[in-house]
Amino acid sequence: MLEHIFSRARDMRKMVEQDGGNDLLKGRIVACLFYEPSTRTSSSFIAAMERLGGQVIPITQGVQFSSVTKGESLEDTIRTLEQYADVIVLRHPDIGSATRAAHAADIPIINAGDGAGEHPTQALLDLFTIQDELGTVDNLKIAMVGDLRFGRTVHSLTKLLTLFDVSLRYVSPDILRIPMNILNPVIDAGIDVRETNDVSEVIEQCDVLYVTRVQKERFTDMTEYDGVKSYYEITPELMQRAKDKMIVMHPLPRVGEISEAVDDDPRAAYFRQVKNGMFIRMALLAEVLGR
Amino acid sequence: MLEHIFSRARDMRKMVEQDGGNDLLKGRIVACLFYEPSTRTSSSFIAAMERLGGQVIPITQGVQFSSVTKGESLEDTIRTLEQYADVIVLRHPDIGSATRAAHAADIPIINAGDGAGEHPTQALLDLFTIQDELGTVDNLKIAMVGDLRFGRTVHSLTKLLTLFDVSLRYVSPDILRIPMNILNPVIDAGIDVRETNDVSEVIEQCDVLYVTRVQKERFTDMTEYDGVKSYYEITPELMQRAKDKMIVMHPLPRVGEISEAVDDDPRAAYFRQVKNGMFIRMALLAEVLGR
Amino acid sequence: MLEHIFSRARDMRKMVEQDGGNDLLKGRIVACLFYEPSTRTSSSFIAAMERLGGQVIPITQGVQFSSVTKGESLEDTIRTLEQYADVIVLRHPDIGSATRAAHAADIPIINAGDGAGEHPTQALLDLFTIQDELGTVDNLKIAMVGDLRFGRTVHSLTKLLTLFDVSLRYVSPDILRIPMNILNPVIDAGIDVRETNDVSEVIEQCDVLYVTRVQKERFTDMTEYDGVKSYYEITPELMQRAKDKMIVMHPLPRVGEISEAVDDDPRAAYFRQVKNGMFIRMALLAEVLGR
Repeated sequence: MLEHIFSRARDMRKMVEQDGGNDLLKGRIVACLFYEPSTRTSSSFIAAMERLGGQVIPITQGVQFSSVTKGESLEDTIRTLEQYADVIVLRHPDIGSATRAAHAADIPIINAGDGAGEHPTQALLDLFTIQDELGTVDNLKIAMVGDLRFGRTVHSLTKLLTLFDVSLRYVSPDILRIPMNILNPVIDAGIDVRETNDVSEVIEQCDVLYVTRVQKERFTDMTEYDGVKSYYEITPELMQRAKDKMIVMHPLPRVGEISEAVDDDPRAAYFRQVKNGMFIRMALLAEVLGR
Repeated sequence: MLEHIFSRARDMRKMVEQDGGNDLLKGRIVACLFYEPSTRTSSSFIAAMERLGGQVIPITQGVQFSSVTKGESLEDTIRTLEQYADVIVLRHPDIGSATRAAHAADIPIINAGDGAGEHPTQALLDLFTIQDELGTVDNLKIAMVGDLRFGRTVHSLTKLLTLFDVSLRYVSPDILRIPMNILNPVIDAGIDVRETNDVSEVIEQCDVLYVTRVQKERFTDMTEYDGVKSYYEITPELMQRAKDKMIVMHPLPRVGEISEAVDDDPRAAYFRQVKNGMFIRMALLAEVLGR
Repeated sequence: MLEHIFSRARDMRKMVEQDGGNDLLKGRIVACLFYEPSTRTSSSFIAAMERLGGQVIPITQGVQFSSVTKGESLEDTIRTLEQYADVIVLRHPDIGSATRAAHAADIPIINAGDGAGEHPTQALLDLFTIQDELGTVDNLKIAMVGDLRFGRTVHSLTKLLTLFDVSLRYVSPDILRIPMNILNPVIDAGIDVRETNDVSEVIEQCDVLYVTRVQKERFTDMTEYDGVKSYYEITPELMQRAKDKMIVMHPLPRVGEISEAVDDDPRAAYFRQVKNGMFIRMALLAEVLGR
């Protein structure tokens, strides 16, 4: 199934590079229902639908001012929108909301993030990027860096990676370590896994450096923050120690944890990763709309 | 004229079921100008235009932060937008605003609700739903339930129904009775009409049960509210006493006045009513754009 | 170059009048990234793209609630959006932001206003309107009226007009006079230029009366405001003294500085000017997308 989606995503890339777009989803409508604004994710889905010739009902702002504040249930909103649209992309702050929506709807629901729950299209595009950039996922050493406690993308990607034969390195401050309920299934899967505090310990061996933001606000003691922050900053100096064939990823937005001087490094894959998000979403939309 | 629009709406439904969309309004642009957000209504118009191959300028949020707060008159905003668009759908909080807009514009204006004034496309889709579900409007007994005082949809639908040979039942708490200026024309038209306080008095005879929300906030005395609220709640038990061939309608959103357990009852027509809204708006857009 | 764009804009007008739209930019996507809402400008760009068969990612509201509040740099937002879109239209409150964006991007950036900086598409449509309405720019006497100190459109238009053989008249209250850094290059270009306080001094000779709003808030002394405001109001009486062949322009929105009674005067060109904005933007989009 993963390979099928990835293969379609590669076809989508070829098509966009050649033609810009096509008419595969002409006459189809996606409702983008975002209870929390997320310019990056909503723009990615909108572009994906448009490049396939489909159309969009953009409900990406202000849901909170409308029907919903009149107390309408998520289920009723979904059952209303499915009268207009052929598929609904849902972003909602509550865990489990996408499942509730899918239960209420007769049309496909795509989960674009349900709070601290899942963000499955992000995990897909992350995995696709690894495979696409390095040719394989198996046998790679993958380091995840930064806020591993609250970083939803790290949790979702970890779950997907347990399907593969990889080594994992988790690099974080002590207060932001990967949660046990994420780590234990990795151990149970027999995966080679270690935790460390300092990215310099993994930089030389890793094939993938997946960076996330360490938010200052997580620290109660600012001297502690100042003491550790440099352990998680990716600089050109640090990159000199990395392999020639490896990639740096980031779910974005970044706020300083990767120096802009790294952007021109061919190993900096984070903007290609963004573009892959569009291709993956094109593949998913084509798939769920049965074309 | 009504029958002409309804006939086109049925054609639109057939087309959407078969093909999803067509190119009837290709190259045409609708500006959706919503001074108050209404996800339901704006989404319905957007989907209607898109399914006909037309395109949308979505001004469905934040009008209040833009030109308008710089003090521009409605007329100037309309005359600006008509330079870009072929038709304007207007939602505005002031009574009479749609008429003012139509006076200023050289292109068609569709009124999508002008405050406590009219909401004509809602009345059209309500009437269409009755006719479509029951095959006729004449000779039906139609009960409207809930907040009949402030419920704009009830007022607009009542006006349309006086064109037909119907019986009307108005079911409301005393403080939310149908206003005299709405009721008197009904009486003058010679229509069989009665008011009651309790939906159980009409449930057995009615062909249409048109439910609206009774807002707690309307009551100053909460014990009064608690005493009457059950008179206006539609439950599976109540539905057991209704005819086999009848329908329950609601303009939505609902907040508990129809139990979710009623949703699976084939007589629950409110989500089909939502979908009819799209077909009616497709018919209107095709009509005013002369295609 | 100007003439090339103007010629395409005239072609666009012909096409829209005949067909409504075409498929020139089919499969192309514009991201409209507005850090400040501007219904007029964003609607103009959206309509322009849609009439050419292209599609839009509308980020016209609430950018402030999204990625950006998470501290993402403008450069990163631009580099993200360029993965999805083929061209970005940027409105941003900071001077120089469009240049920064263009530096970061590999795709074209169109500046839709960068704070107190430039608003080049407005200047283009202003100049196009003058040429289109009066057949030429050279040898015209052009009066600019109102707030010449803060009025960005006046500054941008002035710069363009120094390329032509025109006479300029600046009409403003003393506290809102044209800034020296705008006026001096005009003088240096050898252009016939004068400043006055009263529009009645220029009304009889001018070919173009370009009106902008005098904001009450600029005055600390309200009696001063009341004393001068009539010097900048365009009324039917004033228009009786103007030439038969001249035009009144305004960047809009207006708030009383042109009487609505002037709207029906054939010399009132401000709504045609709005429409020209769409044609100019169509020409620019077609140009930068290489079609």
